Amino acid sequence: MTTPVLPTEVSVVNVGLPLFADAIRDQGRPVTQVDWRIPAGGDLQLVAALARLYGPRAAAIDEANAEVARRLDQGAPKLVGIEPALGALPGVDDRTVIHSGPAIDWADMCDPLRRSVRAAAMAEGWARTPAAVDDLIARDRVHLEPANLHAAVVPMASAIGPSAPMFVVEDGASGVRAFSSMNQGPGETAWFGRETPAAVERLVFLRDVAAPLLAQCLEAAGPLDVFTLAAQGLAMGDDLHMRTQATTNLLLRTLLPHLMALDDPRRADLGRFLSANHLFFLNIAMAGAKALTLWAEQVQGSSIVTTMARNGTTYGVRLAGDDRWFVTASPPIGQALYYPGQGPESSAPDIGDSAVLELMGLGGAAAAASPAVAAFVGGSMRDAVAATESMERICAARSTRFKLPILDFRGSPLAVDVRKVVELGITPKVNTGILHAFDGSGQVGAGVAEAPIACFRAALLDLDCR
Amino acid sequence: MTTPVLPTEVSVVNVGLPLFADAIRDQGRPVTQVDWRIPAGGDLQLVAALARLYGPRAAAIDEANAEVARRLDQGAPKLVGIEPALGALPGVDDRTVIHSGPAIDWADMCDPLRRSVRAAAMAEGWARTPAAVDDLIARDRVHLEPANLHAAVVPMASAIGPSAPMFVVEDGASGVRAFSSMNQGPGETAWFGRETPAAVERLVFLRDVAAPLLAQCLEAAGPLDVFTLAAQGLAMGDDLHMRTQATTNLLLRTLLPHLMALDDPRRADLGRFLSANHLFFLNIAMAGAKALTLWAEQVQGSSIVTTMARNGTTYGVRLAGDDRWFVTASPPIGQALYYPGQGPESSAPDIGDSAVLELMGLGGAAAAASPAVAAFVGGSMRDAVAATESMERICAARSTRFKLPILDFRGSPLAVDVRKVVELGITPKVNTGILHAFDGSGQVGAGVAEAPIACFRAALLDLDCR
Repeated sequence: MTTPVLPTEVSVVNVGLPLFADAIRDQGRPVTQVDWRIPAGGDLQLVAALARLYGPRAAAIDEANAEVARRLDQGAPKLVGIEPALGALPGVDDRTVIHSGPAIDWADMCDPLRRSVRAAAMAEGWARTPAAVDDLIARDRVHLEPANLHAAVVPMASAIGPSAPMFVVEDGASGVRAFSSMNQGPGETAWFGRETPAAVERLVFLRDVAAPLLAQCLEAAGPLDVFTLAAQGLAMGDDLHMRTQATTNLLLRTLLPHLMALDDPRRADLGRFLSANHLFFLNIAMAGAKALTLWAEQVQGSSIVTTMARNGTTYGVRLAGDDRWFVTASPPIGQALYYPGQGPESSAPDIGDSAVLELMGLGGAAAAASPAVAAFVGGSMRDAVAATESMERICAARSTRFKLPILDFRGSPLAVDVRKVVELGITPKVNTGILHAFDGSGQVGAGVAEAPIACFRAALLDLDCR
Repeated sequence: MTTPVLPTEVSVVNVGLPLFADAIRDQGRPVTQVDWRIPAGGDLQLVAALARLYGPRAAAIDEANAEVARRLDQGAPKLVGIEPALGALPGVDDRTVIHSGPAIDWADMCDPLRRSVRAAAMAEGWARTPAAVDDLIARDRVHLEPANLHAAVVPMASAIGPSAPMFVVEDGASGVRAFSSMNQGPGETAWFGRETPAAVERLVFLRDVAAPLLAQCLEAAGPLDVFTLAAQGLAMGDDLHMRTQATTNLLLRTLLPHLMALDDPRRADLGRFLSANHLFFLNIAMAGAKALTLWAEQVQGSSIVTTMARNGTTYGVRLAGDDRWFVTASPPIGQALYYPGQGPESSAPDIGDSAVLELMGLGGAAAAASPAVAAFVGGSMRDAVAATESMERICAARSTRFKLPILDFRGSPLAVDVRKVVELGITPKVNTGILHAFDGSGQVGAGVAEAPIACFRAALLDLDCR
């Protein structure tokens, strides 16, 4: 019988739970940690679906995904004008109010979205008080429909009536057109869930003053390439979601000769509004992203997410080539900075169509571009880089136009692959504002929301059955 | 007799010439390279001076330097208006043309600066042709003086007549006022060394149209904190020297309500000019830097450089508390990107007062802020960081307002210490444009110029004797 000899040197490779690696590291021994998790959290149905979607069906899906990614990356939507929702948006009638997120009944709408619907209805002149709007809605005199069903996207708690002005973007190659509302600016505004006279007045100002004057400027300037501007803004610290200041300023500089040439005394009001609205470009970027996701979703058999939208109650995603929504409860915003006296308990769940940006290599995907976003994800640029790298793990491609200087001008991650999301249990991180849950006071903070995994899992299982 | 035993493991620390370290590294052995050079290139006179300035006099100098750095860091110059050089600038009379760089005779001026002087004189109405200006100068009818002697700074080959509009900045705490010309924009312009009718017309436009309208806007806007805007621009990719686009846009956004409220039909021309001039803020930043270096230079017994200016022929520096200039030949621009068909052989030496920015934590000191500058120093953000780190080695302080996101929001280096410059043989790296040397065609490229060591050495020896 030989005495067992213990080795004097132990080197360890640990796969999975980092606890074991930590214990060895604590004892001063070298250890290599392999960051591996059980795919899809070990759910057998999902694992079986993944085996098929990564296995026999992989080649076909990858080919479809490459075409989706190509459209998202190469499409060049141009801002071509501003038109009222009625007439411009397919399927909108003179009683339609479009809203953010998946379809939802009035009874289930969160407080900020209801207030925004009331403000929109009052701006239309349908009613003079919030209570009167509620009465109209009870009598089915207002048609509430998701913006996304009308080739449009609207941020936060936006609700948009038929006379409201919409940015029109058009992708030259595909001819696809998409729309977004005009950004309403900071403060007492309906898109933040306010229904005050000032909020209604802002909607009227946008329709009656800002839209006609800006439409004149846009016509004089000619079509503006939305993502060429955005790419420049990205190199100037914008993520194009939480922060669009650089790109807004680039737009203003581009329009300046036309703005200053306006021969209308109300131009001074427009100047004040534009000067104070550093999110003005947000909605334009969203319209651009909607145009390209609309083009991309014409591709069949892909595992790429082409819709991601929240209404403050539910959170929905869709895949390219499929009309169906996969919907789950909208989550609270995880990483957040609140205004003084505010906190998670008084905050509405995640809301708005702006998450379409995260599908396009912007927002959370471009966090590494933005010192301002870094403040919301931990404070250092390393934290912002980590947010981008988290998106890289679930994306199928890299943008060739959105470059991240801090990452050696690597392209930002593009085309969220539902297979990777479900396999890794990593969902898109969406840079977003936060609204008060019930008192109508508007914005209470901003932060980074993780999309809920449930809707991605449902979408994956559906893709597996198709 | 014992046999010598060779060690089986060799670890090496190499001091100085990296060749030895490289040789050891090539043999696969660990080596630590200590980056050390003989101080002041081994010049015995300089080494002796350094021994005194770092030795017995160090405490007094460090104290003076701390006050200089405090003024550079804490001063808050505000843009308060626009006024003609005559009247605003101390010591300017109705025949004075101020120019960039140290004092220089007409006979010694480089070609671009001469052309710029001619354009300025023609804009004043003193002559109709370049030849007629030469005749005036030959008859001593034009007083050529450095802008720096009149509390002013002008970029590139600027030459500024008495009727020309000057930005006026004022530091509230000290009451110090400083001035800069208005940026003339791209293309056929005198500050790039052009003397064409279009270049003269631009000067007239600035004086007769842009200045009065902008002065109105500035009055309506109230004083603007120059370096608060610059600090924001720094987080948006500006170095504030080679690139000022973000800060220019921030300024335009700030002024937008007033620009759009202008009740003068020429506002459309102003809009076109501003929209096309992404260096518009450059001169304003320079005026702010001049105000703080003027305040700082009231401190006696410091080793901090408070003037650094070039006229395309000579390069001059001054130290705080000393009126004397230390002048040497202006060098070519070392690291450069040229327009097609251009190169070093057709380029004028380094020119302009804009190097005052590098003394303030901007320009080369803030290269790490700017993806655009990275393109000029090697292509990657690492190269831009290296440029900032080179400035860190010769600076006495860090800015508390100019933060570099990529360096974990570390302040940019501030207050160039002539002792460190001479000891290490590292001179400031200045981000700059490049002009054609002789054919009057204007800008031919841009790059990074290393200041010549000779003027710093002379300044150090002078300080040693004071």
